[in-house]
Amino acid sequence: MIAFSTQDSSLNKDIVLKAVIYTPSEPVVASWLERMRALLPDWTFNALTEENDPETVQYAVVWRPQTGDIAKFPNLKAVVSIGAGIDHVLADEELPRHLPIIRTVGADLTQFMREYVALHVLRHHRNRPHQAAAQARAEWDAVEVPPAPQRRVGVMGLGNLGGVAAQTLAGLGFQTVGWARSPREIDGVTGYFGAENFDAFLEGTEILVNLLPLTEETKGVLNADTFAKLPKGACIINAARGPHLVEEDLLSTLDSGQIAQATLDVFNVEPLPSDHLFWKHPAITVTPHIASRIDSGTGSRIIAANLEAFEKTGTVKDLADAVRGY
Amino acid sequence: MIAFSTQDSSLNKDIVLKAVIYTPSEPVVASWLERMRALLPDWTFNALTEENDPETVQYAVVWRPQTGDIAKFPNLKAVVSIGAGIDHVLADEELPRHLPIIRTVGADLTQFMREYVALHVLRHHRNRPHQAAAQARAEWDAVEVPPAPQRRVGVMGLGNLGGVAAQTLAGLGFQTVGWARSPREIDGVTGYFGAENFDAFLEGTEILVNLLPLTEETKGVLNADTFAKLPKGACIINAARGPHLVEEDLLSTLDSGQIAQATLDVFNVEPLPSDHLFWKHPAITVTPHIASRIDSGTGSRIIAANLEAFEKTGTVKDLADAVRGY
Repeated sequence: MIAFSTQDSSLNKDIVLKAVIYTPSEPVVASWLERMRALLPDWTFNALTEENDPETVQYAVVWRPQTGDIAKFPNLKAVVSIGAGIDHVLADEELPRHLPIIRTVGADLTQFMREYVALHVLRHHRNRPHQAAAQARAEWDAVEVPPAPQRRVGVMGLGNLGGVAAQTLAGLGFQTVGWARSPREIDGVTGYFGAENFDAFLEGTEILVNLLPLTEETKGVLNADTFAKLPKGACIINAARGPHLVEEDLLSTLDSGQIAQATLDVFNVEPLPSDHLFWKHPAITVTPHIASRIDSGTGSRIIAANLEAFEKTGTVKDLADAVRGY
Repeated sequence: MIAFSTQDSSLNKDIVLKAVIYTPSEPVVASWLERMRALLPDWTFNALTEENDPETVQYAVVWRPQTGDIAKFPNLKAVVSIGAGIDHVLADEELPRHLPIIRTVGADLTQFMREYVALHVLRHHRNRPHQAAAQARAEWDAVEVPPAPQRRVGVMGLGNLGGVAAQTLAGLGFQTVGWARSPREIDGVTGYFGAENFDAFLEGTEILVNLLPLTEETKGVLNADTFAKLPKGACIINAARGPHLVEEDLLSTLDSGQIAQATLDVFNVEPLPSDHLFWKHPAITVTPHIASRIDSGTGSRIIAANLEAFEKTGTVKDLADAVRGY
């Protein structure tokens, strides 16, 4: 968490950012401090762990703040999420609900996500897990698969990340369908919109990719009911948030063969505890929340631009909707 | 091998195809026979293993014919390769060199290849082998990689398959370079042409994909000299032909760390013998010649169209150049 403050609120020209950085990792905090200071030399940055005068802090830039971290600054103008999602901010039960939340959305984020989705959809499409097991047995086992135009792949969530991911899959030749709450047109992608079209979206979808925002409505959307509507032997990829998935439902549908394989990048508890069943499950690929990330290099430039714009105009393009939840 | 013959050469309307199918697999032969008979009911098909009157055979459709298989038919008009490459035909030392060779190039072949190349380039780009090893140790190890626009990927061979593969990589955002003997323009791909530009092509190429045709000139092109010109820790993907790779050079450059990882779909001996070192090598991914394939469903339609066209006009678009070797 980084908190930005003016030393003296009467001196608007001399805004000072007392950067209060909070992430689970100290080196990451240091890297963000350094970059933000270099980009906005008129502002001053401190880490959350340093001593700060709460009255002077105007902006809080956060990744997974702890409960009460934000409420302790009474004069905040906005909260900046170091990420495209804001669920990690909303999870703070003491968050003052009137505060604008600025998302961080950038080219690298969408690029990383389309790479991850393309890689893992292709892995399931071409049956890499089976092939890797055959290699371990020194077995020449030429699995036949249909070409991508005969494979239906579905993306849930057609926002910044999901939209680009779906477009990338269509570009690779997949029969691509997408589902979202409200209509959005994407080249080469057949869209299904609203709860009433969810079943039609799932029907025939052999590889299901979740990129929904995490809200009260979408929590647990990857459950036994959903899985039962996919064709037998479907694969799922969760690159959104851990709580989208009902873990025990995945394990039982893997057992039954209804779901053949799953790739999971996000979990209810992260890092995934070393004794968690997912690690050793032969049909689960675990990746350590690397699908897409903001590094401090690219992210700090986006955040600096958003802070300057918000300070000048009172709004930015990437403002989230706290009520909607994304 | 399938040989097509007229029962009576004076009856041009009544061309009969004595289909002499030859592949390493009996079921594959049967499947081709059935499909060709259905598509061209005026022709007759036999398998090579059946008794045939050599004089009447006009066309030979082959995959990896054995030495002398083609020469035994004195009245052949053309040889059809069940595949985009013709090296497996030219390998027959008794092949009558005057015979036109028709390649089989189709949408599925290029689609399968672009999928394979995209999958394996992304696997190396996102360091899947490292990630899979971390999962086996139940270790949350978030490897950082640059986004694709900061990753230089090179494709050797810009023919039907290589051209589409390079275009696909560029579409995924990779910094894509290509190398071929003679100039060919591909959207989003920086081309290097001729032997004099080979070193410049290799310089900085972190992931090298080989899709060259196999000729006397390209045999052994994946050797220690080539590997030394790539940046340290580069990855290679061979989806062309086994003899492109000098096997012992790969093993020594993997030992030295000059090459970090290799994905191989083709081998000097196929199936790869079960005691071959490649199977268990931790830095080698073996796939059983599945990058791209012609199945009898799609392939038979392409070949039927080519045979009809050649019979009518004496030529086809996909005629290979036996002297050039592809």
